[in-house]
Amino acid sequence: MDCVFCKIVAGELPSTKLYEDDQMLVFQDIAPAAPLHYLAIPKTHIPGVDGITADNSAVIAHIFEKIAALTAERGISDYRVVSNVGEQAGQTVRHLHFHILSGPKGGPMY
Amino acid sequence: MDCVFCKIVAGELPSTKLYEDDQMLVFQDIAPAAPLHYLAIPKTHIPGVDGITADNSAVIAHIFEKIAALTAERGISDYRVVSNVGEQAGQTVRHLHFHILSGPKGGPMY
Repeated sequence: MDCVFCKIVAGELPSTKLYEDDQMLVFQDIAPAAPLHYLAIPKTHIPGVDGITADNSAVIAHIFEKIAALTAERGISDYRVVSNVGEQAGQTVRHLHFHILSGPKGGPMY
Repeated sequence: MDCVFCKIVAGELPSTKLYEDDQMLVFQDIAPAAPLHYLAIPKTHIPGVDGITADNSAVIAHIFEKIAALTAERGISDYRVVSNVGEQAGQTVRHLHFHILSGPKGGPMY
């Protein structure tokens, strides 16, 4: 599978990890769009939000539980969670990822 | 409870609904930030992503299943899902909501 994020999950590409468990990984975005910019991804290859179904959605609940817990642990009270679907919206890697962004002031959403 | 979105859920305030079931509601944002701008919310009052725990996260999986299904049904292939936490990031209503935004070209994420 020629997926950059699957390679990061497999340890074939490096990443600066913040959190990892059997279902998910959180690591720094290499091209930060805000002072704090992490990516939370499922280890399973789901192409994007558009690939979420009842069969694989349990990991989404798990990812959001961890986003809440990890930010709270670090005292990050203000942040934005973004997931782009399709090139037009800005999705560059077709492996589901949630951007976690924080900084002095969030700009427009789209 | 003095929550605008709880009042929309209860039918005490009007909204232009796209989808509703026992767990969630999708309706048009009254101040659209993109040509297409819907809000997907749980009916239960969760203040934001920061209020997601193992006890209430099942609805998050459900909401994302429905975002995928509703956009697919309408032929919307490119979109952005955003949730702001805290005023600095742009959260104006303290009831968890996922913005679904679509238009010709998504700008910066933060």
